[in-house]
Amino acid sequence: MKVDAALQVIGVVRSGHAELETTPIQAGINRAEQAVVEVDEAYSDGLDGLAGFDYAWLVTWLHRHPTFAGPPPMRQVPFLLRGQQRSMGMFATRAPRRINPLGLSLVRIVEVSGATVVFAGVDVVDGTPVIDIKPYVTRFDRPAGDPKCGWFDHVSIDEAATPAQLAVPPDRPPASLAEDIR
Amino acid sequence: MKVDAALQVIGVVRSGHAELETTPIQAGINRAEQAVVEVDEAYSDGLDGLAGFDYAWLVTWLHRHPTFAGPPPMRQVPFLLRGQQRSMGMFATRAPRRINPLGLSLVRIVEVSGATVVFAGVDVVDGTPVIDIKPYVTRFDRPAGDPKCGWFDHVSIDEAATPAQLAVPPDRPPASLAEDIR
Repeated sequence: MKVDAALQVIGVVRSGHAELETTPIQAGINRAEQAVVEVDEAYSDGLDGLAGFDYAWLVTWLHRHPTFAGPPPMRQVPFLLRGQQRSMGMFATRAPRRINPLGLSLVRIVEVSGATVVFAGVDVVDGTPVIDIKPYVTRFDRPAGDPKCGWFDHVSIDEAATPAQLAVPPDRPPASLAEDIR
Repeated sequence: MKVDAALQVIGVVRSGHAELETTPIQAGINRAEQAVVEVDEAYSDGLDGLAGFDYAWLVTWLHRHPTFAGPPPMRQVPFLLRGQQRSMGMFATRAPRRINPLGLSLVRIVEVSGATVVFAGVDVVDGTPVIDIKPYVTRFDRPAGDPKCGWFDHVSIDEAATPAQLAVPPDRPPASLAEDIR
């Protein structure tokens, strides 16, 4: 079943990353790097008030992971489990190959000026379409306590890790998590 | 500009709410109520591993806020500012009338069984299409410290507030925030 409407692109990310394999896998672990959303001029008034927030969600369309050729596999090996070659259900991962290739990035708002949003926390390649910006609201978006985070609780995640860094070297077999996940 | 792909519906929410005006405005302030996502059987293997997480993001298509008639206004009066009749840029609100009517709900996973996800934290009407489920990962999704949340920092938000409760009574003019926001 399809949604009976087309997604509109509200803007485009201009980042310093051209290749997926060398782009950090999540904004939340690459908080120092900055990039820009160039919002379509038609929508720039929609940014009014955003500068008052420290953080926002960027909802992006991960256009470099097209689904024209059919749906991606339901179980996949996430970047962070490449060392183990362990697979997980797509909806238990933040993998970009999804039924709908939507990205969800927590970014810090640095500056809002006209139709431009400068942000810190970059996990998308240059040219990625933005389909929504939502303010981060602690009351809505922060669970109480210290929630269980499934398999993520058992991997270590280096700051600004990229798929290339997380690849299994071809001359080394998958080993234990403690040795292999960087 | 449009995204050159159609959104797939991965499942449907079955909730106890039929009307928008009496549906709580955010999952995060209605954490006790439960509902269900009935995932399409074709995608049920994608849920493997989700039960290990306490929380997830539901990305929904707010089908009762269609955009066929053209884009919604760039500045709107959010439910929580109805008392003041103060408007905000769409991208500084969590309002459902957006260029792309995407919902982002933080829900607590209660049970995953077959193609069914029981969750707590309900802010959508029965029949709402789900277009993605992503696990909540503290390392990715929790900003450090106590971030500024713009105009939300100046409103009080009652648990399970609904648009109907936040409406300005017709016999009462908009008044100050302290008196009026419920």
